[in-house]
Amino acid sequence: MNYRIDNLQYCKWSREIFEINREAGLNAVHVTVVYHEDYDEFLKRVSEWDELFNKNSDLIFLGKDFKDIEKAKSENKTAIFFGFQNCSPIEDDLKLVEKVHSLGCRFMQLTYNNQSLLATGCYENVDSGVTNFGKEVIKEMNRVGIVIDMSHSAEKSTLDAIELSEKPIAITHANPFFWHNAKRNKSEVLLKNLSDSGGMLGLSLYAHHLKDGSNCKIENFCEMVAKTAELIGVKNIGIGSDLCLNQPDNVVEWMRNGTWTKVKNYGEGSKDKPGFPKQPEWFIDARGFNFLEKGLKDIGFSKEEVNDILGNNWFNFYKGIN
Amino acid sequence: MNYRIDNLQYCKWSREIFEINREAGLNAVHVTVVYHEDYDEFLKRVSEWDELFNKNSDLIFLGKDFKDIEKAKSENKTAIFFGFQNCSPIEDDLKLVEKVHSLGCRFMQLTYNNQSLLATGCYENVDSGVTNFGKEVIKEMNRVGIVIDMSHSAEKSTLDAIELSEKPIAITHANPFFWHNAKRNKSEVLLKNLSDSGGMLGLSLYAHHLKDGSNCKIENFCEMVAKTAELIGVKNIGIGSDLCLNQPDNVVEWMRNGTWTKVKNYGEGSKDKPGFPKQPEWFIDARGFNFLEKGLKDIGFSKEEVNDILGNNWFNFYKGIN
Repeated sequence: MNYRIDNLQYCKWSREIFEINREAGLNAVHVTVVYHEDYDEFLKRVSEWDELFNKNSDLIFLGKDFKDIEKAKSENKTAIFFGFQNCSPIEDDLKLVEKVHSLGCRFMQLTYNNQSLLATGCYENVDSGVTNFGKEVIKEMNRVGIVIDMSHSAEKSTLDAIELSEKPIAITHANPFFWHNAKRNKSEVLLKNLSDSGGMLGLSLYAHHLKDGSNCKIENFCEMVAKTAELIGVKNIGIGSDLCLNQPDNVVEWMRNGTWTKVKNYGEGSKDKPGFPKQPEWFIDARGFNFLEKGLKDIGFSKEEVNDILGNNWFNFYKGIN
Repeated sequence: MNYRIDNLQYCKWSREIFEINREAGLNAVHVTVVYHEDYDEFLKRVSEWDELFNKNSDLIFLGKDFKDIEKAKSENKTAIFFGFQNCSPIEDDLKLVEKVHSLGCRFMQLTYNNQSLLATGCYENVDSGVTNFGKEVIKEMNRVGIVIDMSHSAEKSTLDAIELSEKPIAITHANPFFWHNAKRNKSEVLLKNLSDSGGMLGLSLYAHHLKDGSNCKIENFCEMVAKTAELIGVKNIGIGSDLCLNQPDNVVEWMRNGTWTKVKNYGEGSKDKPGFPKQPEWFIDARGFNFLEKGLKDIGFSKEEVNDILGNNWFNFYKGIN
């Protein structure tokens, strides 16, 4: 059985997008439910999702574990897995880790760009690694079954998390630094440590993470996948598209600035290009998985390897979460 | 005019303690109103203080600036200045800095032992210094008039804060490391940087910060004051007793463990001595200021210098807060 999984989307959710994801054949999507929200605000996001599940029950349902991906496949639906891009919903309370898990959370980033109570983000000048509280939270995430996601974290913090976590961790949406030197992309040392420990890299289709940005060629992207597979093995690679469909630009402004600064921060953008970047034309939405399928075959991957990259590897990773 | 100021107390507040502080001649006390509380919980602490102010209006009132210390002196009362031992009440929201100031906050620690969103605490293994959010918060604290307090912070974070802050900062309650090598006590380099920038050191009377702990001799304490004055000048030294009168031991457990760990953390204590330590017999409460007055004279300080150390230096520092 083959599965297609996009392990990171943060769209302005609507029936239209759930339909596109079905057209793309996605059996599971890991969705971002919070960026900077605290616990009470997270509860509101959960209510909004309840509404989406009710109204679109023919297309989606809340996924709890890998069996729900099998179920989604057999019912022609997409299982939605909740994730956090920051640890703000657990506030400073270790007990909230179990609470957010019971409400569906299966992935949590320890940081989002800046320093958190748990670890250092990739936009800080100095990276002190996983903190005292972070060590306790990792143990608790391991215990309850929430994946540690270090996509927006700094290098030492990520290496610490790999070492501290008893279960494999994930970088759900980023690319290798050797291909495109964005701050968010990851070094070879880090990727090797990740794969050696059984962790997963979800390759990103977000223009700021791509060589040549919105003009990135699919051939070039697939070459990068091949080089990455040589480096860390094909079994540790999946897709985490980072699609932000239909989001207005004030959302990316909020993602970057939250409530922490008066001086506007442009993150991966710039003053001239403050908004969401344009998607490359071969990946304007999840139907781009079909272009990827062809592109990966063309670069020399076997049919099995292509299926691994486009979903089976993530499926196998989900088996180990709980 | 001479003033007596204790620039850190965290007692289980009662009329009895306000009377003791009056007996000790204290014109101002900086009180800890929160450790780990978030903004909403801080509002509850403010309500509790409102009640205390109402019931004890003959003894205390809320101090806003140095003029309230003069007023307290002339009315034989004690002005109470609010402070935070952790930055948790501002959560991740820069706008809350102005809000907590308007509710009385005049001192805020950037960290309490562990990593915060602003800086690193003295109990972390690695100190990454002041964070991106921390830099914004320091600017805002400077603007509205809240003193940066680094008593529980790590060394690099403290040096960063001294450099980043446009106004002098404070270490409201700690002693020099050269005298007693507690993790919370401060290095000579740090103390010199602090005093060179016009910052204040409030010497602590908490047993874990004292040489020989509860058995510390007053002569020995006053010798330390003399050495510290040689090192950083007498004008930058005050008292921040860290008195925790009448607090039950579960409070110190909460101070150390908050909600961040399942494994009990003993902080400056130990498994054998988990509770609040006994005060030295010459400083069981603020009336110990009288013993200090004598002790400091005996070690060779002039009358003026003794008055500086016991309150006038803090009074002058308060003049620069707003």
